[in-house]
Amino acid sequence: MFETVAVVGATGAVGRIMLKLLEERAFPAGEFRLLASSRSSGTAVSFRGEQCQVEELTHDSFDDVDLVLSSTPDQVAAEFLPSAIQAGATVIDESGYWRMDPDVALVVPEINPEAALGAAGIIASPNCSTTQMVLALKPLHDASALRRVIVSTYQATSGAGAEGIEDLQAGTRAALDGQSYDYRCFAHPIAFNAIPQIGSVKEQGYTSEEMKMVIETRKILGLPDLAINATCVRIPVANGHSETITVETERAIDPDEARRLFAEHPGISVLDDPAEGIYPLPTACSGHDDVFVGRIRRDLSSPTGLTFWCVADNLRKGAATNAIQIAELLSANRSDSPR
Amino acid sequence: MFETVAVVGATGAVGRIMLKLLEERAFPAGEFRLLASSRSSGTAVSFRGEQCQVEELTHDSFDDVDLVLSSTPDQVAAEFLPSAIQAGATVIDESGYWRMDPDVALVVPEINPEAALGAAGIIASPNCSTTQMVLALKPLHDASALRRVIVSTYQATSGAGAEGIEDLQAGTRAALDGQSYDYRCFAHPIAFNAIPQIGSVKEQGYTSEEMKMVIETRKILGLPDLAINATCVRIPVANGHSETITVETERAIDPDEARRLFAEHPGISVLDDPAEGIYPLPTACSGHDDVFVGRIRRDLSSPTGLTFWCVADNLRKGAATNAIQIAELLSANRSDSPR
Repeated sequence: MFETVAVVGATGAVGRIMLKLLEERAFPAGEFRLLASSRSSGTAVSFRGEQCQVEELTHDSFDDVDLVLSSTPDQVAAEFLPSAIQAGATVIDESGYWRMDPDVALVVPEINPEAALGAAGIIASPNCSTTQMVLALKPLHDASALRRVIVSTYQATSGAGAEGIEDLQAGTRAALDGQSYDYRCFAHPIAFNAIPQIGSVKEQGYTSEEMKMVIETRKILGLPDLAINATCVRIPVANGHSETITVETERAIDPDEARRLFAEHPGISVLDDPAEGIYPLPTACSGHDDVFVGRIRRDLSSPTGLTFWCVADNLRKGAATNAIQIAELLSANRSDSPR
Repeated sequence: MFETVAVVGATGAVGRIMLKLLEERAFPAGEFRLLASSRSSGTAVSFRGEQCQVEELTHDSFDDVDLVLSSTPDQVAAEFLPSAIQAGATVIDESGYWRMDPDVALVVPEINPEAALGAAGIIASPNCSTTQMVLALKPLHDASALRRVIVSTYQATSGAGAEGIEDLQAGTRAALDGQSYDYRCFAHPIAFNAIPQIGSVKEQGYTSEEMKMVIETRKILGLPDLAINATCVRIPVANGHSETITVETERAIDPDEARRLFAEHPGISVLDDPAEGIYPLPTACSGHDDVFVGRIRRDLSSPTGLTFWCVADNLRKGAATNAIQIAELLSANRSDSPR
């Protein structure tokens, strides 16, 4: 087990769920340190039955720390996490900054645990929209090689942090009352709208969020040339990302086989009886740790195509849960592990 | 021109917009009759500066009527429109009932006006999600033959009628206030949710809405074997359907060429400068008659693929505007036309 665990970004939307999961899952550790930016330091946070003071994150925060669980903006991860590595800590990072560094392991524990166990430096947790898709893709790829992936996302405002949820609620209330509202997280009003841009605009007209889905998926699956086409859209959902995913595989995977492959894979739950109104819904999947799939059917436009709907709690499996699962994997495999 | 025009379903969500468009566009006719079910008959509706009484729709409503503009549930269209044809009227129908009848013309005036001009019986206007997609596909297909279409929709609640908008507003207010609400139009709460089912479940796990996008698109484009894969999702938007569309064409159409093809085509507007936050948004496109496209880019997963985002007012071009445009086309081409 790890003796001293630091939670960086402990007051953020993902940080708070990390603390909840550490409690719920009784993560074994001697001591926890809660860290945040100077803006949030001093806050008292309820954790394991106590009120814990959040300390300010500095380059000296990592003395004697064995494990760092970090969820911060990219710039904070860029600045502070090398200090944690230098101090000898194992670092699990939720930010986007380190993911595509060739020396950094990008890990979904149900897919590539070996990458976490063999990591020398930072271990990164993927982007939320990537994690749920790549987990759903894995059992299909194991059954028949993926040839192409086309995904459209329906992403919740919590992906933009706690302010994203507040923006949605306050903006929606204002819209219903015929009032205006100044959004802090979104370039356009998200109330009763769909915004086809998440992140900045990068190469060839794709956004940063879309390119994360392409390059992170390739890295996690070890398929550097996998053909992926992503469109990422923000919708007025508070929490829980949804995705329509169409894949082409080397041989056709029929829907019954796909249902079985999904159901047998760790971390995936199948909800698929549309005639009875049963399929994953973001409101219902929010608060759960699994990736949920449904609407599984043959792609009518390709002989080797399969189409399905995939929903997960973006703050949990898309972020906090995945990080904690990596930490549990490492904890159980430490030479000093009592397990 | 037509002497006597009957508007059937005059009090519905689409019917009211048809009346507005007939006013705004000064549709030439001697007399208008407003018809609705017995539940709504007797209602007074403001039309062309007067309060007009809505009459009850019966089989005898069509005596001396030259043109019928009809927007009703399928069963009403099935029961009453044959009486209108028998009475010698030209009938333009918004419902889904007659669209796939081989004797019925299915028309988007910018695409297949000849089908309307040559029609002997009912002329059907397509499903809202189909109309905007097929209009965007047309200039691409004219430039290079379509091989495959993959579409995911983000559909507004007004597609379920006036009650759909009320459900969204009342349900959202209840959700914000922590109250419950009994939805009339939706099998699951639509507030802050995404529901991957529109219509009933049909063949191979596809819904009726998804199959409309497949079979209606093929009929309108005259491409009976076109490969189309649709996933239709209801989201918490009041009005304006959005779609992510990926196409494969015989030769690659590059994004600049696509932008030009779209911009030159009647009924399509291009809004495409994502770095400046410019792309179609359903809240902004609501109330407009065009189909709007943006996020036009090369499909990274196919050498002949193109991906874009498409938004239209589902009550206007998706329904009322398309019907009125068909009526204008017919009116201008009548032998007695003064134009």
